[in-house]
Amino acid sequence: MKRLMLLAAAAALCTFQHDAAAASVQPQAEQMSELPPLYADELARAKNFVDEMMAEGLVVPLPKDPGGGYTHEQHKRNYKAIYLGGQIYRVTGDEAYRDYARDMLLEYAEMYPKLGDHPAKANQNVGRLFWQVLNDAMWLVHAVQGYGDIRDTLTSAERAMIDDNVFRPAAKFLSVDSERTFNLIHNHATWATAGVGMTGYLLGDRDMVDRALLGSDKSGETGFIRQTELLFSPDGYYTEGPYYQRFALLPFLVFADAIERNEPERKIFEHRDGILLKALRTTVQLSYRGYFFPFNDAIRDKSLKTAELYDGIAIAYAQTGDPSLLSVAEFQDRTVLSKNGMMVASDLAAGKAKPFPFKSLMLSDGPEGKQGAVAVLRDGPTNAEGEPSTALIAKNTSQGMGHGHFDKLAWQMYDNGNEIVRDYGAARFLNIVAKEGGRYLPENETWAKSSIAHNTLVVDEKSHFDGDVKLASAKAPSQLYFSDADGLQVSSGRIAEAYPGVLMQRTLIVPDIPGLEAPVVLDLVRGRSRDAHQYDLPLHYSGHIMEFDFAVDSNVEARPVLGEANGYQHIWVDAQAKRDDGKGALTWILDGRFYTYRFAGNGPIDVVLGETGANDPNFNLRREPLIMLRASRENGQASFASLLEAHGKYDGAAEQTVASRSRVADLDHSWIEGVDIVRLTLKSGQRFAIAVSHQPDPEAAHSVTIDGETIAWTGFAAVVALTDEGN
Amino acid sequence: MKRLMLLAAAAALCTFQHDAAAASVQPQAEQMSELPPLYADELARAKNFVDEMMAEGLVVPLPKDPGGGYTHEQHKRNYKAIYLGGQIYRVTGDEAYRDYARDMLLEYAEMYPKLGDHPAKANQNVGRLFWQVLNDAMWLVHAVQGYGDIRDTLTSAERAMIDDNVFRPAAKFLSVDSERTFNLIHNHATWATAGVGMTGYLLGDRDMVDRALLGSDKSGETGFIRQTELLFSPDGYYTEGPYYQRFALLPFLVFADAIERNEPERKIFEHRDGILLKALRTTVQLSYRGYFFPFNDAIRDKSLKTAELYDGIAIAYAQTGDPSLLSVAEFQDRTVLSKNGMMVASDLAAGKAKPFPFKSLMLSDGPEGKQGAVAVLRDGPTNAEGEPSTALIAKNTSQGMGHGHFDKLAWQMYDNGNEIVRDYGAARFLNIVAKEGGRYLPENETWAKSSIAHNTLVVDEKSHFDGDVKLASAKAPSQLYFSDADGLQVSSGRIAEAYPGVLMQRTLIVPDIPGLEAPVVLDLVRGRSRDAHQYDLPLHYSGHIMEFDFAVDSNVEARPVLGEANGYQHIWVDAQAKRDDGKGALTWILDGRFYTYRFAGNGPIDVVLGETGANDPNFNLRREPLIMLRASRENGQASFASLLEAHGKYDGAAEQTVASRSRVADLDHSWIEGVDIVRLTLKSGQRFAIAVSHQPDPEAAHSVTIDGETIAWTGFAAVVALTDEGN
Repeated sequence: MKRLMLLAAAAALCTFQHDAAAASVQPQAEQMSELPPLYADELARAKNFVDEMMAEGLVVPLPKDPGGGYTHEQHKRNYKAIYLGGQIYRVTGDEAYRDYARDMLLEYAEMYPKLGDHPAKANQNVGRLFWQVLNDAMWLVHAVQGYGDIRDTLTSAERAMIDDNVFRPAAKFLSVDSERTFNLIHNHATWATAGVGMTGYLLGDRDMVDRALLGSDKSGETGFIRQTELLFSPDGYYTEGPYYQRFALLPFLVFADAIERNEPERKIFEHRDGILLKALRTTVQLSYRGYFFPFNDAIRDKSLKTAELYDGIAIAYAQTGDPSLLSVAEFQDRTVLSKNGMMVASDLAAGKAKPFPFKSLMLSDGPEGKQGAVAVLRDGPTNAEGEPSTALIAKNTSQGMGHGHFDKLAWQMYDNGNEIVRDYGAARFLNIVAKEGGRYLPENETWAKSSIAHNTLVVDEKSHFDGDVKLASAKAPSQLYFSDADGLQVSSGRIAEAYPGVLMQRTLIVPDIPGLEAPVVLDLVRGRSRDAHQYDLPLHYSGHIMEFDFAVDSNVEARPVLGEANGYQHIWVDAQAKRDDGKGALTWILDGRFYTYRFAGNGPIDVVLGETGANDPNFNLRREPLIMLRASRENGQASFASLLEAHGKYDGAAEQTVASRSRVADLDHSWIEGVDIVRLTLKSGQRFAIAVSHQPDPEAAHSVTIDGETIAWTGFAAVVALTDEGN
Repeated sequence: MKRLMLLAAAAALCTFQHDAAAASVQPQAEQMSELPPLYADELARAKNFVDEMMAEGLVVPLPKDPGGGYTHEQHKRNYKAIYLGGQIYRVTGDEAYRDYARDMLLEYAEMYPKLGDHPAKANQNVGRLFWQVLNDAMWLVHAVQGYGDIRDTLTSAERAMIDDNVFRPAAKFLSVDSERTFNLIHNHATWATAGVGMTGYLLGDRDMVDRALLGSDKSGETGFIRQTELLFSPDGYYTEGPYYQRFALLPFLVFADAIERNEPERKIFEHRDGILLKALRTTVQLSYRGYFFPFNDAIRDKSLKTAELYDGIAIAYAQTGDPSLLSVAEFQDRTVLSKNGMMVASDLAAGKAKPFPFKSLMLSDGPEGKQGAVAVLRDGPTNAEGEPSTALIAKNTSQGMGHGHFDKLAWQMYDNGNEIVRDYGAARFLNIVAKEGGRYLPENETWAKSSIAHNTLVVDEKSHFDGDVKLASAKAPSQLYFSDADGLQVSSGRIAEAYPGVLMQRTLIVPDIPGLEAPVVLDLVRGRSRDAHQYDLPLHYSGHIMEFDFAVDSNVEARPVLGEANGYQHIWVDAQAKRDDGKGALTWILDGRFYTYRFAGNGPIDVVLGETGANDPNFNLRREPLIMLRASRENGQASFASLLEAHGKYDGAAEQTVASRSRVADLDHSWIEGVDIVRLTLKSGQRFAIAVSHQPDPEAAHSVTIDGETIAWTGFAAVVALTDEGN
């Protein structure tokens, strides 16, 4: 608490007060000239935007278009103008901005009462100003903040006009007419409760505030407080994934900031062990080079440089003074015009920033942290932002509601600045009218959500839980083991319910292997059942094929489709191979680096080299390569051991190529008494075993004898040097 | 000349002399500490490289591997070490580097005399140290420079050993045993003559020098001097294209620099109106964002940041003092350890750099400039390097010898930092052993060189000149017109011999059209013949399809191949359309920008939407999209008018999309009395005509009446405003 007090004091010293009363106090010129650069830029950017809007005059069109359409974008521009206009007035005292925000709101006061359901209504969650109620909530969250900055300076007639014809009915629309959405435990409800609650504080409407905090019935079983308890895991992971987490964070933090100002006794930022601030840090951890891991229905171009996070970082910094948040703001090169933003900009200018501690971590999922987890394994040299070059993500989380994908035990990997093992994200072109009005595309259901679109085990060509979100939401994987030990990071997960009677287990290991470059990833996947099944293990990689060590039948003159349904219909088959020994290797290049994927199955393996884009008449899908391993097992027992090896360098400018071929000569996998033994023979003759006991006890000693060699180690897993070949 | 004298004087003031005599003079510590940053970095980089080599000891393996293989790369590292070792010794006086270079050369003296043809011989141009003689020439060009820096300090026994067992036999191998290559008018011969000539100067062997300058028979019909007259056009364009031009420039400029030092009376840099320096500037002009236009057999990752140009820029700067060359060196962030490099580094540190004047220009091709031309039309806001954002290239050049592609009248366009309309370049993975040992791939012949692989007109599914390089080399297109007029840039070219009895003509215009963003490109293509023909016009674009305004038959479940041969066998057909009115439009997105390609044919057009990669069992081709327009014309008369319109913006971070759809409502093309009239109707109702008289006279007045509207203009072409729709 002491730190908080100090910060509060520091904040108080700021030139600009957040309460409207002081808004008319015009800052002195020298004060303006002394603004820290980031804040000054923000102010200039805001003025620039609002000035352009003012030049266009007040444009408040009758709602008509869906996302991306003209009226949609105009109402977005309008709420941004009200929000910024109010802030600029508070900061500069320039009444032109106050008047503009006021007049804009008076225009809405004219129109709003006449509105019914939006004409571009797409489902039951219809809005008034926008095609979906979510956007109406976003409008309110922004507009009410701008209104708060000017309201005290308006005439009582103006206030009444705006209060009664815009904010009260808008709050009523969200919390009463749209009660179904309002009482969900879902980020859409977070936006709605935030808008309604902040409106309540501004209008001094206790009832409105209580409904926002505790739900329509004020029972507390829904509403904002409950959302902070159910939507984040104890580790601050948001069940829908980082793309939605950063989206949900804005209303969470902005409303929390308002609660803190209006009801500090609620200690909202300490609620549930400071879950909201924890959630913000977690959001940053779930990114690579600034871009969020594209779990579930994610738009891939979303990065930390997103409006929702500027306010969040500023609020969190004001609450904690954590200097690593300053480096996030520095990366964003943005802040907000609140006193929190001023604090961020000042301390950044004072050189107080420290690198954000990107690290390996395991984040439990579920309100009690009992619905699986996501494991992030980071490794390698760090860049300027202090971020390691390699990040492997094991997604052993729950379904993540309606935007969740059927991707149990899936993984992803980044290296050398690129996504090497891919997650497709959402099939959607946000706000691009030509693509279904910017909404989710049909291929989001037929491809993006399907299991085969992910790096996971697919049984009998069906998606996990047969693609049923209800079933999927009932059962989550379990995280069996996690270790961030240097040189031997591990994540192991399991799920028994993705397919009836099939136990799926995956262990991912990032070991240091003498003689190999980093990263090396060992992937152990097992499917166990009493019944015969077909097991498919796709790897969606990024790059151009250099070579493979198996003979293929190529479909070079007519390209068939892999399957009929569940995503298989979207895969072109370039080539197929039969590997009786279950072994093979594929090498590709990406951005001057080579990657070899080497696999060994417990019996014959069919290999498919394919590309996405089949059955896609509207060219909605990206065309991306994949390799799929298929094991048809009469006894229902399938295992895949594969090694992803990064190696070498291609420098086109220098015309230099180094180590373009794998340094591994052979990969051999055995499963003995519940123990996985993977033996590697390097071309140098060096031999190593990666032994996995699957026993978490770090002290427990294990020993296995195989082909006359005894391999001994302690703990869950180990890299054991074997006698070199020829010795 | 006065400027040259001054510069010579300035050079003389440099701390470091180029003649070996002064090499033993150790520079004072303070002098070393005063090295300009770029030079100091270069010295550190060179030391770092040679120190590593010295740590490994002398490794001079018997030649065995092809390009990219171990012995190939080792001998490349060795000549680099000899070259840099000598330079470091000259600069620092540190004898360890002298001794290392000497001992390395003594190792070669042991081995070289025993060598025969390289075991990885691929064709008749076999080398000794390398699989092709070209690399042996490169070895000599570098090694002789390093040797030159230390030779005077060696014992006469050492000199004799190295002279007689390495340099004389190497020069003999290149100029006598490999006389065929040596006497070519080709960049391979430039490397050979440079190596032999510089060896001649060093060993004081007049005969060697004369053979290098004038060819084996000293007639002057071949040899270095003749190469400077035949390999560049009067505008300094090198017929093989920029990728080879930058490669050829090193021996041209390095040898010229040696000639200037040894025989200043030859005034080599003034020879043919200063062609060598002109060629260097032209090379820089033929790049976008530092990357060379990938004409012909080009490796796409080649940029100005390439070893061959560091020396060239330094030599040219020493000769001219042109400050815009400093900004090229600044972009390269590299220089060389010669006194020229010192001059570049010093003046750069002194802040003398000026932006390089990237501009629209026409470069004639052919020794007399009569074999066509390449036109570069640049436009748009400039970046930090002063380079315009848009560059359109019309390639109306001659074939460009064996590495030339059958791409008469082809074009390319860059915008917003990306290649929007593509040239495939070479099908080759340089030095990557798995890909045919890093040599050209079979697909270089079957795809990369073919006409259909380029943005040009293809008749009856055959390549230009039926793919016969001899025929192709005999006839070049003619550049009919060129204008870099602001707001209406034009290039027009024609060729009558690419197909018997077919006249091909293409006019590319970059106009400013009120109401449209820039760039807008109008492409007018005409094929004229007395006989029936099928005319195909492919556009190889970069991006993801957003929409098209025509109904298609989609091949979504089995993907057929477009044709049998001449590159058609490598094209998958995704969809086909029949347009009886000959009209249609396709919109794609790339890097947040939208592009709409709108076309109108003189009659029915078949449209193919396709992707490369068919009949490619080894995955040697990149998979890239194309749209192809097909006009089957009984009367042999085909015309295609198309408009490429850049528009809008997609900002994933801000979730903002603007103008994702074309602003053009209709495109209409007429051909009246030898005049092209393209009428544009914008969605705003605005109407414009782009009128093309094809008459170069800027004063000549033209007038055409069409649909009751009279369109009048003067000169070759004009944008004429028409009465708006509805007025």
